[in-house]
Amino acid sequence: MKIGIVGLGLIGGSLAHDLGRHHEITGVSRSSATVAEALSQGLIRQGGESLGLLGSCELVFVCTPIGLTLETIRALAAVLPPETILTDVASVKAAIVPAAEALWPNFVGGHPMAGGEAQGLSAARAGLFRGRPYVLTPTPRTPAAACTALEDLVGELGARLVRTDPETHDRAVARISHLPVFVGAALLLNLAASGDPTASTLASSGFFDTTRVGGGNPQLGAAMAEWNRAALLAELCSYRDHLGRLEQAIAAGDWQAVEQRLGECRKTRREVCEGGI
Amino acid sequence: MKIGIVGLGLIGGSLAHDLGRHHEITGVSRSSATVAEALSQGLIRQGGESLGLLGSCELVFVCTPIGLTLETIRALAAVLPPETILTDVASVKAAIVPAAEALWPNFVGGHPMAGGEAQGLSAARAGLFRGRPYVLTPTPRTPAAACTALEDLVGELGARLVRTDPETHDRAVARISHLPVFVGAALLLNLAASGDPTASTLASSGFFDTTRVGGGNPQLGAAMAEWNRAALLAELCSYRDHLGRLEQAIAAGDWQAVEQRLGECRKTRREVCEGGI
Repeated sequence: MKIGIVGLGLIGGSLAHDLGRHHEITGVSRSSATVAEALSQGLIRQGGESLGLLGSCELVFVCTPIGLTLETIRALAAVLPPETILTDVASVKAAIVPAAEALWPNFVGGHPMAGGEAQGLSAARAGLFRGRPYVLTPTPRTPAAACTALEDLVGELGARLVRTDPETHDRAVARISHLPVFVGAALLLNLAASGDPTASTLASSGFFDTTRVGGGNPQLGAAMAEWNRAALLAELCSYRDHLGRLEQAIAAGDWQAVEQRLGECRKTRREVCEGGI
Repeated sequence: MKIGIVGLGLIGGSLAHDLGRHHEITGVSRSSATVAEALSQGLIRQGGESLGLLGSCELVFVCTPIGLTLETIRALAAVLPPETILTDVASVKAAIVPAAEALWPNFVGGHPMAGGEAQGLSAARAGLFRGRPYVLTPTPRTPAAACTALEDLVGELGARLVRTDPETHDRAVARISHLPVFVGAALLLNLAASGDPTASTLASSGFFDTTRVGGGNPQLGAAMAEWNRAALLAELCSYRDHLGRLEQAIAAGDWQAVEQRLGECRKTRREVCEGGI
Protein backbone atom coordinates (compact mmCIF):
# COMPACT_ATOMS: atom_id res chain seq x y z
CA MET A 1 0.00 0.00 0.00
CA LYS A 2 1.23 3.51 -0.70
CA ILE A 3 1.01 5.35 2.61
CA GLY A 4 1.65 9.05 3.28
CA ILE A 5 2.59 10.52 6.66
CA VAL A 6 2.36 14.26 7.32
CA GLY A 7 4.40 15.21 10.37
CA LEU A 8 7.43 13.07 11.19
CA GLY A 9 7.52 13.44 14.96
CA LEU A 10 7.17 10.80 17.66
CA ILE A 11 3.87 9.42 16.32
CA GLY A 12 4.44 9.90 12.58
CA GLY A 13 7.99 8.60 12.82
CA SER A 14 6.93 5.56 14.84
CA LEU A 15 4.19 4.76 12.29
CA ALA A 16 6.87 4.91 9.58
CA HIS A 17 9.07 2.52 11.60
CA ASP A 18 6.32 -0.12 11.80
CA LEU A 19 4.41 0.35 8.52
CA GLY A 20 7.55 0.82 6.40
CA ARG A 21 8.26 -2.89 6.62
CA HIS A 22 5.29 -3.82 4.42
CA HIS A 23 4.31 -0.56 2.75
CA GLU A 24 5.83 2.22 0.69
CA ILE A 25 5.97 5.34 2.87
CA THR A 26 6.12 8.94 1.68
CA GLY A 27 6.87 11.45 4.44
CA VAL A 28 6.13 15.17 4.55
CA SER A 29 7.45 17.51 7.22
CA ARG A 30 7.70 21.28 7.56
CA SER A 31 11.37 20.71 8.38
CA SER A 32 13.71 19.69 5.55
CA ALA A 33 16.21 18.47 8.17
CA THR A 34 13.59 16.07 9.56
CA VAL A 35 12.83 14.76 6.05
CA ALA A 36 16.56 14.27 5.42
CA GLU A 37 16.91 12.41 8.71
CA ALA A 38 13.92 10.15 7.97
CA LEU A 39 15.34 9.38 4.51
CA SER A 40 18.79 8.65 5.89
CA GLN A 41 17.31 6.28 8.49
CA GLY A 42 15.38 4.52 5.72
CA LEU A 43 12.08 5.26 7.48
CA ILE A 44 10.50 6.73 4.34
CA ARG A 45 10.95 5.85 0.67
CA GLN A 46 10.61 9.48 -0.43
CA GLY A 47 9.71 12.76 1.16
CA GLY A 48 9.82 16.54 1.24
CA GLU A 49 8.10 19.65 2.51
CA SER A 50 5.25 19.68 -0.01
CA LEU A 51 1.89 17.95 0.46
CA GLY A 52 1.81 17.58 -3.34
CA LEU A 53 4.17 14.61 -2.94
CA LEU A 54 1.25 12.59 -1.51
CA GLY A 55 -0.89 12.65 -4.68
CA SER A 56 -0.46 8.93 -5.35
CA CYS A 57 -0.96 7.72 -1.76
CA GLU A 58 -3.90 5.45 -0.99
CA LEU A 59 -3.97 6.41 2.68
CA VAL A 60 -2.50 9.42 4.51
CA PHE A 61 -1.91 9.80 8.27
CA VAL A 62 -2.06 13.42 9.48
CA CYS A 63 0.35 13.45 12.43
CA THR A 64 0.76 17.19 13.00
CA PRO A 65 0.11 18.90 16.36
CA ILE A 66 -3.66 19.04 17.07
CA GLY A 67 -3.93 22.72 16.14
CA LEU A 68 -2.68 22.08 12.59
CA THR A 69 -4.80 19.00 11.87
CA LEU A 70 -7.74 20.69 10.15
CA GLU A 71 -5.69 23.13 8.09
CA THR A 72 -3.51 20.23 6.93
CA ILE A 73 -6.60 18.28 5.87
CA ARG A 74 -7.89 21.39 4.05
CA ALA A 75 -4.58 21.68 2.19
CA LEU A 76 -4.50 17.95 1.40
CA ALA A 77 -8.03 18.18 -0.04
CA ALA A 78 -6.63 20.40 -2.78
CA VAL A 79 -4.02 17.88 -3.94
CA LEU A 80 -5.38 14.36 -3.30
CA PRO A 81 -7.65 12.20 -5.49
CA PRO A 82 -11.00 11.49 -3.78
CA GLU A 83 -10.26 7.79 -3.28
CA THR A 84 -7.40 8.55 -0.86
CA ILE A 85 -8.28 7.69 2.73
CA LEU A 86 -7.36 10.32 5.32
CA THR A 87 -6.93 9.75 9.03
CA ASP A 88 -5.55 11.80 11.90
CA VAL A 89 -3.91 10.98 15.26
CA ALA A 90 -5.23 13.88 17.35
CA SER A 91 -5.96 13.11 21.02
CA VAL A 92 -9.35 14.85 20.77
CA LYS A 93 -12.00 13.87 18.27
CA ALA A 94 -15.31 15.74 18.62
CA ALA A 95 -13.78 19.06 17.53
CA ILE A 96 -11.94 17.41 14.62
CA VAL A 97 -14.02 14.62 13.08
CA PRO A 98 -17.13 16.48 11.80
CA ALA A 99 -15.00 19.31 10.38
CA ALA A 100 -12.58 16.83 8.78
CA GLU A 101 -15.48 14.85 7.25
CA ALA A 102 -16.86 18.06 5.77
CA LEU A 103 -13.47 18.73 4.16
CA TRP A 104 -12.84 15.12 3.12
CA PRO A 105 -15.65 12.53 3.14
CA ASN A 106 -13.18 9.63 2.95
CA PHE A 107 -11.97 10.34 6.49
CA VAL A 108 -11.66 8.15 9.62
CA GLY A 109 -10.79 9.78 12.95
CA GLY A 110 -8.05 7.99 14.91
CA HIS A 111 -6.14 8.25 18.17
CA PRO A 112 -3.22 5.92 18.85
CA MET A 113 -2.77 6.11 22.64
CA ALA A 114 0.99 5.95 22.85
CA GLY A 115 3.69 8.45 23.45
CA GLY A 116 6.10 9.48 26.09
CA GLU A 117 7.95 12.43 27.48
CA ALA A 118 10.36 12.70 24.55
CA GLN A 119 9.16 14.28 21.31
CA GLY A 120 10.30 14.46 17.72
CA LEU A 121 11.63 12.01 15.16
CA SER A 122 14.57 11.12 17.39
CA ALA A 123 12.12 9.70 19.97
CA ALA A 124 10.25 7.63 17.35
CA ARG A 125 10.74 3.88 17.50
CA ALA A 126 9.46 0.57 16.20
CA GLY A 127 6.79 -1.12 18.33
CA LEU A 128 5.53 2.08 20.01
CA PHE A 129 1.90 1.08 19.45
CA ARG A 130 2.17 -2.61 20.31
CA GLY A 131 -0.38 -3.60 22.94
CA ARG A 132 -1.60 0.00 23.28
CA PRO A 133 -5.14 1.19 22.50
CA TYR A 134 -5.67 2.60 19.00
CA VAL A 135 -9.07 4.34 18.96
CA LEU A 136 -11.03 4.75 15.74
CA THR A 137 -14.10 6.98 15.73
CA PRO A 138 -16.07 6.19 12.56
CA THR A 139 -19.41 7.98 12.19
CA PRO A 140 -22.50 7.03 10.16
CA ARG A 141 -20.90 9.04 7.32
CA THR A 142 -17.60 7.13 7.33
CA PRO A 143 -17.10 4.87 4.26
CA ALA A 144 -16.87 1.24 5.43
CA ALA A 145 -13.91 0.52 3.14
CA ALA A 146 -11.89 3.35 4.68
CA CYS A 147 -12.57 2.01 8.17
CA THR A 148 -11.61 -1.54 7.18
CA ALA A 149 -8.35 -0.38 5.58
CA LEU A 150 -7.38 1.47 8.73
CA GLU A 151 -8.36 -1.43 11.00
CA ASP A 152 -6.01 -3.66 9.03
CA LEU A 153 -3.14 -1.22 9.64
CA VAL A 154 -3.97 -1.01 13.35
CA GLY A 155 -3.71 -4.81 13.41
CA GLU A 156 -0.29 -4.65 11.72
CA LEU A 157 0.88 -2.24 14.44
CA GLY A 158 -0.07 -4.81 17.09
CA ALA A 159 -2.29 -2.21 18.75
CA ARG A 160 -5.58 -2.91 20.57
CA LEU A 161 -8.40 -1.63 18.35
CA VAL A 162 -11.09 0.37 20.17
CA ARG A 163 -14.07 1.71 18.19
CA THR A 164 -16.24 4.42 19.66
CA ASP A 165 -17.88 7.71 18.72
CA PRO A 166 -16.00 11.04 19.00
CA GLU A 167 -17.94 12.30 22.04
CA THR A 168 -17.50 9.08 24.04
CA HIS A 169 -13.80 9.16 23.18
CA ASP A 170 -13.42 12.75 24.33
CA ARG A 171 -15.20 12.19 27.65
CA ALA A 172 -13.06 9.10 28.28
CA VAL A 173 -9.73 10.81 27.56
CA ALA A 174 -10.82 13.82 29.62
CA ARG A 175 -11.25 11.42 32.58
CA ILE A 176 -8.12 9.34 32.27
CA SER A 177 -5.68 11.52 30.34
CA HIS A 178 -6.47 15.25 30.34
CA LEU A 179 -7.77 15.60 33.92
CA PRO A 180 -4.65 13.91 35.40
CA VAL A 181 -2.50 16.56 33.69
CA PHE A 182 -4.21 19.39 35.57
CA VAL A 183 -4.56 17.44 38.82
CA GLY A 184 -0.81 16.80 38.81
CA ALA A 185 -0.02 20.34 37.66
CA ALA A 186 -1.85 21.82 40.66
CA LEU A 187 0.35 19.70 42.99
CA LEU A 188 3.41 21.29 41.40
CA LEU A 189 1.96 24.81 41.59
CA ASN A 190 1.09 24.17 45.25
CA LEU A 191 4.65 23.07 46.01
CA ALA A 192 6.22 25.96 44.08
CA ALA A 193 4.00 28.52 45.83
CA SER A 194 4.90 27.12 49.26
CA GLY A 195 8.59 27.97 48.79
CA ASP A 196 9.22 25.10 51.23
CA PRO A 197 12.81 23.85 50.81
CA THR A 198 12.23 20.85 53.12
CA ALA A 199 9.32 19.65 50.99
CA SER A 200 11.44 19.94 47.90
CA THR A 201 14.27 17.99 49.56
CA LEU A 202 11.92 15.21 50.71
CA ALA A 203 9.96 14.84 47.46
CA SER A 204 10.40 11.31 46.21
CA SER A 205 8.91 8.65 43.95
CA GLY A 206 5.30 9.17 45.12
CA PHE A 207 5.41 12.88 44.28
CA PHE A 208 7.35 12.31 41.05
CA ASP A 209 4.89 9.70 39.76
CA THR A 210 1.81 11.70 40.71
CA THR A 211 3.14 14.79 38.87
CA ARG A 212 4.73 13.14 35.82
CA VAL A 213 2.07 14.11 33.30
CA GLY A 214 1.32 17.39 35.13
CA GLY A 215 4.95 18.42 34.60
CA GLY A 216 4.97 17.40 30.93
CA ASN A 217 4.88 19.34 27.67
CA PRO A 218 3.01 22.65 28.32
CA GLN A 219 1.97 23.11 24.65
CA LEU A 220 0.41 19.65 24.59
CA GLY A 221 -1.40 20.24 27.90
CA ALA A 222 -2.78 23.57 26.72
CA ALA A 223 -3.87 22.01 23.41
CA MET A 224 -5.74 19.24 25.29
CA ALA A 225 -7.57 21.91 27.28
CA GLU A 226 -8.33 24.03 24.22
CA TRP A 227 -9.61 21.18 22.03
CA ASN A 228 -11.40 19.19 24.72
CA ARG A 229 -12.55 22.10 26.85
CA ALA A 230 -16.16 21.12 27.60
CA ALA A 231 -15.37 17.53 28.58
CA LEU A 232 -12.35 18.60 30.63
CA LEU A 233 -14.34 21.27 32.50
CA ALA A 234 -17.03 18.70 33.29
CA GLU A 235 -14.38 16.34 34.71
CA LEU A 236 -12.71 19.11 36.72
CA CYS A 237 -16.10 19.87 38.24
CA SER A 238 -16.87 16.29 39.26
CA TYR A 239 -13.25 15.76 40.37
CA ARG A 240 -13.58 18.73 42.73
CA ASP A 241 -16.66 17.11 44.28
CA HIS A 242 -14.86 13.82 44.93
CA LEU A 243 -11.83 15.56 46.42
CA GLY A 244 -14.13 17.74 48.52
CA ARG A 245 -15.90 14.71 49.96
CA LEU A 246 -12.58 13.17 50.97
CA GLU A 247 -11.63 16.51 52.54
CA GLN A 248 -14.89 16.63 54.49
CA ALA A 249 -14.32 13.15 55.87
CA ILE A 250 -10.84 14.20 57.01
CA ALA A 251 -12.13 17.44 58.53
CA ALA A 252 -14.82 15.46 60.36
CA GLY A 253 -12.22 12.99 61.64
CA ASP A 254 -14.21 10.11 60.15
CA TRP A 255 -11.24 7.80 59.66
CA GLN A 256 -13.43 4.82 58.93
CA ALA A 257 -14.99 6.65 55.96
CA VAL A 258 -11.53 7.79 54.77
CA GLU A 259 -10.20 4.25 54.90
CA GLN A 260 -13.29 2.86 53.22
CA ARG A 261 -13.02 5.33 50.31
CA LEU A 262 -9.30 4.69 49.92
CA GLY A 263 -10.18 0.99 49.83
CA GLU A 264 -12.52 1.68 46.89
CA CYS A 265 -9.67 3.55 45.22
CA ARG A 266 -7.31 0.61 45.54
CA LYS A 267 -9.96 -1.72 44.14
CA THR A 268 -10.70 0.60 41.22
CA ARG A 269 -7.04 1.03 40.35
CA ARG A 270 -6.41 -2.71 40.40
CA GLU A 271 -9.40 -3.35 38.16
CA VAL A 272 -8.40 -0.62 35.71
CA CYS A 273 -4.77 -1.77 35.59
CA GLU A 274 -6.02 -5.27 34.86
CA GLY A 275 -8.00 -3.89 31.94
CA GLY A 276 -11.51 -2.71 32.66
CA ILE A 277 -13.85 -1.90 35.54
CA MET B 1 26.11 -2.00 69.24
CA LYS B 2 23.14 -3.90 70.62
CA ILE B 3 20.13 -2.75 68.58
CA GLY B 4 16.48 -3.63 69.10
CA ILE B 5 13.77 -3.48 66.45
CA VAL B 6 10.08 -3.58 67.36
CA GLY B 7 7.98 -4.43 64.32
CA LEU B 8 9.59 -6.60 61.65
CA GLY B 9 7.75 -5.35 58.59
CA LEU B 10 9.10 -3.62 55.49
CA ILE B 11 10.93 -0.88 57.43
CA GLY B 12 11.97 -2.86 60.52
CA GLY B 13 13.04 -5.83 58.43
CA SER B 14 15.04 -3.66 56.04
CA LEU B 15 16.80 -1.99 58.99
CA ALA B 16 17.72 -5.47 60.24
CA HIS B 17 19.09 -6.37 56.79
CA ASP B 18 21.46 -3.37 56.76
CA LEU B 19 22.33 -2.92 60.43
CA GLY B 20 22.73 -6.64 61.14
CA ARG B 21 26.03 -6.65 59.30
CA HIS B 22 27.80 -4.62 62.00
CA HIS B 23 25.47 -4.82 65.00
CA GLU B 24 23.72 -7.41 67.13
CA ILE B 25 20.00 -7.20 66.38
CA THR B 26 17.16 -8.31 68.65
CA GLY B 27 13.77 -8.36 66.95
CA VAL B 28 10.30 -8.20 68.50
CA SER B 29 7.08 -8.77 66.60
CA ARG B 30 3.47 -9.45 67.59
CA SER B 31 3.65 -12.42 65.21
CA SER B 32 5.67 -15.45 66.26
CA ALA B 33 5.75 -16.57 62.62
CA THR B 34 7.43 -13.30 61.64
CA VAL B 35 10.02 -13.71 64.41
CA ALA B 36 10.71 -17.28 63.25
CA GLU B 37 11.09 -16.10 59.66
CA ALA B 38 13.50 -13.30 60.68
CA LEU B 39 15.55 -15.76 62.73
CA SER B 40 15.66 -18.31 59.91
CA GLN B 41 16.80 -15.63 57.45
CA GLY B 42 19.52 -14.61 59.91
CA LEU B 43 18.18 -11.06 60.02
CA ILE B 44 18.09 -11.01 63.84
CA ARG B 45 20.35 -12.64 66.42
CA GLN B 46 17.48 -13.31 68.82
CA GLY B 47 13.83 -12.36 69.04
CA GLY B 48 10.34 -13.02 70.29
CA GLU B 49 6.99 -11.45 71.07
CA SER B 50 7.98 -9.77 74.33
CA LEU B 51 9.42 -6.26 74.66
CA GLY B 52 11.26 -7.53 77.73
CA LEU B 53 13.81 -9.11 75.37
CA LEU B 54 15.12 -5.61 74.60
CA GLY B 55 16.37 -4.82 78.13
CA SER B 56 20.05 -4.92 77.18
CA CYS B 57 19.72 -2.94 73.92
CA GLU B 58 21.54 0.38 73.61
CA LEU B 59 19.18 1.67 70.90
CA VAL B 60 15.67 0.56 69.89
CA PHE B 61 13.84 1.36 66.65
CA VAL B 62 10.03 1.39 67.02
CA CYS B 63 8.80 0.29 63.57
CA THR B 64 5.14 -0.44 64.30
CA PRO B 65 2.25 1.15 62.38
CA ILE B 66 1.87 4.84 63.35
CA GLY B 67 -1.14 4.20 65.58
CA LEU B 68 0.84 1.82 67.81
CA THR B 69 3.98 3.96 68.15
CA LEU B 70 3.14 5.75 71.40
CA GLU B 71 1.71 2.74 73.20
CA THR B 72 4.81 0.75 72.22
CA ILE B 73 7.06 3.46 73.65
CA ARG B 74 4.94 3.50 76.82
CA ALA B 75 5.37 -0.25 77.18
CA LEU B 76 9.10 -0.06 76.44
CA ALA B 77 9.50 2.59 79.14
CA ALA B 78 8.53 -0.04 81.72
CA VAL B 79 11.28 -2.47 80.70
CA LEU B 80 14.28 -0.46 79.42
CA PRO B 81 17.14 1.12 81.37
CA PRO B 82 17.16 4.94 81.02
CA GLU B 83 20.36 5.01 78.95
CA THR B 84 18.66 3.17 76.05
CA ILE B 85 18.04 5.45 73.07
CA LEU B 86 14.57 5.17 71.50
CA THR B 87 13.63 6.25 68.00
CA ASP B 88 10.60 5.73 65.78
CA VAL B 89 10.01 5.61 62.01
CA ALA B 90 6.52 7.15 61.83
CA SER B 91 5.78 9.31 58.78
CA VAL B 92 4.32 12.06 61.00
CA LYS B 93 6.25 13.70 63.79
CA ALA B 94 4.41 16.58 65.52
CA ALA B 95 1.78 14.27 67.04
CA ILE B 96 4.43 11.75 68.13
CA VAL B 97 7.62 13.52 69.24
CA PRO B 98 6.45 15.59 72.24
CA ALA B 99 4.41 12.69 73.62
CA ALA B 100 7.29 10.25 73.07
CA GLU B 101 9.72 12.64 74.80
CA ALA B 102 7.39 12.86 77.76
CA LEU B 103 7.38 9.06 78.00
CA TRP B 104 11.09 8.63 77.29
CA PRO B 105 13.48 11.62 77.46
CA ASN B 106 16.21 9.73 75.57
CA PHE B 107 14.13 9.81 72.36
CA VAL B 108 14.90 11.04 68.81
CA GLY B 109 12.09 11.23 66.25
CA GLY B 110 12.93 9.73 62.87
CA HIS B 111 11.37 9.13 59.47
CA PRO B 112 13.21 7.09 56.86
CA MET B 113 11.53 8.05 53.57
CA ALA B 114 11.57 4.73 51.83
CA GLY B 115 9.01 2.08 51.18
CA GLY B 116 7.00 0.71 48.36
CA GLU B 117 3.70 -0.91 47.53
CA ALA B 118 4.60 -4.22 49.11
CA GLN B 119 4.44 -4.60 52.89
CA GLY B 120 5.69 -7.00 55.52
CA LEU B 121 8.94 -8.80 56.22
CA SER B 122 8.85 -10.54 52.83
CA ALA B 123 9.15 -7.11 51.15
CA ALA B 124 12.12 -6.06 53.34
CA ARG B 125 15.49 -5.88 51.64
CA ALA B 126 19.05 -4.69 52.05
CA GLY B 127 19.79 -1.22 50.72
CA LEU B 128 16.21 0.07 50.98
CA PHE B 129 17.37 3.35 52.55
CA ARG B 130 20.43 3.97 50.36
CA GLY B 131 20.30 7.44 48.82
CA ARG B 132 16.87 8.14 50.34
CA PRO B 133 16.12 10.91 52.85
CA TYR B 134 16.23 9.89 56.51
CA VAL B 135 14.69 12.71 58.53
CA LEU B 136 15.60 13.24 62.18
CA THR B 137 13.58 15.72 64.23
CA PRO B 138 15.58 16.46 67.40
CA THR B 139 14.12 19.11 69.69
CA PRO B 140 15.82 21.33 72.28
CA ARG B 141 15.11 18.53 74.78
CA THR B 142 16.81 15.79 72.73
CA PRO B 143 20.09 14.53 74.28
CA ALA B 144 22.98 15.31 71.91
CA ALA B 145 24.53 11.85 72.35
CA ALA B 146 21.29 10.14 71.30
CA CYS B 147 21.13 12.25 68.16
CA THR B 148 24.78 11.55 67.28
CA ALA B 149 24.32 7.79 67.75
CA LEU B 150 21.35 7.80 65.39
CA GLU B 151 23.12 9.98 62.83
CA ASP B 152 25.93 7.43 62.71
CA LEU B 153 23.44 4.66 61.95
CA VAL B 154 21.77 6.78 59.25
CA GLY B 155 25.22 7.14 57.72
CA GLU B 156 25.72 3.35 57.80
CA LEU B 157 22.42 2.92 55.95
CA GLY B 158 23.74 5.17 53.16
CA ALA B 159 20.70 7.42 53.60
CA ARG B 160 20.65 11.22 53.13
CA LEU B 161 20.39 12.78 56.60
CA VAL B 162 17.86 15.61 56.86
CA ARG B 163 17.45 17.42 60.22
CA THR B 164 14.40 19.53 60.85
CA ASP B 165 11.76 20.19 63.51
CA PRO B 166 8.59 18.06 63.74
CA GLU B 167 6.24 20.79 62.45
CA THR B 168 8.39 21.61 59.40
CA HIS B 169 8.63 17.89 58.66
CA ASP B 170 4.87 17.41 58.87
CA ARG B 171 4.08 20.38 56.60
CA ALA B 172 6.64 19.11 54.07
CA VAL B 173 5.32 15.54 53.97
CA ALA B 174 1.75 16.85 53.80
CA ARG B 175 2.77 18.70 50.60
CA ILE B 176 4.76 16.02 48.83
CA SER B 177 3.51 12.73 50.28
CA HIS B 178 0.10 12.91 51.98
CA LEU B 179 -1.63 15.38 49.63
CA PRO B 180 -0.70 13.31 46.52
CA VAL B 181 -2.48 10.31 48.08
CA PHE B 182 -5.80 12.15 48.23
CA VAL B 183 -5.31 13.96 44.93
CA GLY B 184 -4.76 10.62 43.19
CA ALA B 185 -7.54 8.96 45.16
CA ALA B 186 -10.08 11.51 43.92
CA LEU B 187 -9.10 10.69 40.31
CA LEU B 188 -9.96 7.04 41.01
CA LEU B 189 -13.25 7.91 42.73
CA ASN B 190 -14.11 10.16 39.78
CA LEU B 191 -13.44 7.35 37.29
CA ALA B 192 -15.33 4.76 39.35
CA ALA B 193 -18.36 7.06 39.73
CA SER B 194 -18.45 7.72 35.97
CA GLY B 195 -19.09 4.03 35.21
CA ASP B 196 -17.45 4.77 31.84
CA PRO B 197 -16.15 1.51 30.30
CA THR B 198 -14.34 3.36 27.49
CA ALA B 199 -12.35 5.43 29.99
CA SER B 200 -11.39 2.29 31.85
CA THR B 201 -10.29 0.62 28.59
CA LEU B 202 -8.20 3.62 27.55
CA ALA B 203 -6.53 4.26 30.93
CA SER B 204 -2.81 3.93 30.48
CA SER B 205 0.56 4.87 32.00
CA GLY B 206 -0.35 8.52 32.66
CA PHE B 207 -3.40 7.54 34.69
CA PHE B 208 -1.61 4.66 36.40
CA ASP B 209 1.31 6.84 37.51
CA THR B 210 -0.88 9.71 38.69
CA THR B 211 -2.97 7.34 40.83
CA ARG B 212 -0.26 5.01 42.14
CA VAL B 213 -0.12 6.37 45.69
CA GLY B 214 -3.84 7.23 45.65
CA GLY B 215 -4.61 3.56 45.02
CA GLY B 216 -2.21 2.34 47.72
CA ASN B 217 -2.70 0.91 51.21
CA PRO B 218 -5.98 2.36 52.63
CA GLN B 219 -4.92 1.88 56.29
CA LEU B 220 -1.71 3.82 55.68
CA GLY B 221 -3.54 6.62 53.85
CA ALA B 222 -6.12 6.93 56.62
CA ALA B 223 -3.35 6.96 59.25
CA MET B 224 -1.56 9.78 57.41
CA ALA B 225 -4.78 11.79 57.44
CA GLU B 226 -5.49 11.04 61.10
CA TRP B 227 -2.01 11.82 62.39
CA ASN B 228 -1.22 14.76 60.12
CA ARG B 229 -4.72 16.16 59.87
CA ALA B 230 -4.09 19.89 60.32
CA ALA B 231 -1.19 20.07 57.85
CA LEU B 232 -3.03 17.91 55.32
CA LEU B 233 -6.20 20.01 55.52
CA ALA B 234 -4.13 23.17 55.00
CA GLU B 235 -2.56 21.62 51.88
CA LEU B 236 -5.92 20.41 50.55
CA CYS B 237 -7.20 23.97 50.91
CA SER B 238 -4.30 25.59 49.05
CA TYR B 239 -4.30 22.77 46.47
CA ARG B 240 -7.95 23.49 45.71
CA ASP B 241 -7.05 27.13 45.05
CA HIS B 242 -4.33 26.22 42.57
CA LEU B 243 -6.54 23.74 40.74
CA GLY B 244 -9.36 26.29 40.72
CA ARG B 245 -7.12 28.91 39.08
CA LEU B 246 -6.17 26.46 36.35
CA GLU B 247 -9.86 25.65 35.89
CA GLN B 248 -10.72 29.36 35.60
CA ALA B 249 -8.08 29.88 32.92
CA ILE B 250 -9.54 26.93 30.96
CA ALA B 251 -13.11 28.19 31.41
CA ALA B 252 -12.01 31.64 30.21
CA GLY B 253 -10.28 30.10 27.19
CA ASP B 254 -7.02 31.82 28.16
CA TRP B 255 -4.74 29.23 26.53
CA GLN B 256 -1.69 31.43 26.91
CA ALA B 257 -2.17 31.49 30.69
CA VAL B 258 -2.77 27.72 30.75
CA GLU B 259 0.41 27.07 28.79
CA GLN B 260 2.39 29.50 30.94
CA ARG B 261 1.29 27.80 34.18
CA LEU B 262 1.99 24.34 32.78
CA GLY B 263 5.42 25.69 31.85
CA GLU B 264 5.99 26.65 35.49
CA CYS B 265 4.91 23.12 36.46
CA ARG B 266 7.45 21.53 34.15
CA LYS B 267 10.19 23.81 35.51
CA THR B 268 9.24 23.03 39.14
CA ARG B 269 9.16 19.29 38.55
CA ARG B 270 12.56 19.31 36.87
CA GLU B 271 14.06 21.33 39.71
CA VAL B 272 12.54 19.08 42.38
CA CYS B 273 13.61 15.89 40.59
CA GLU B 274 17.13 17.30 40.43
CA GLY B 275 17.03 17.83 44.17
CA GLY B 276 15.60 21.08 45.43
CA ILE B 277 13.79 24.22 44.28
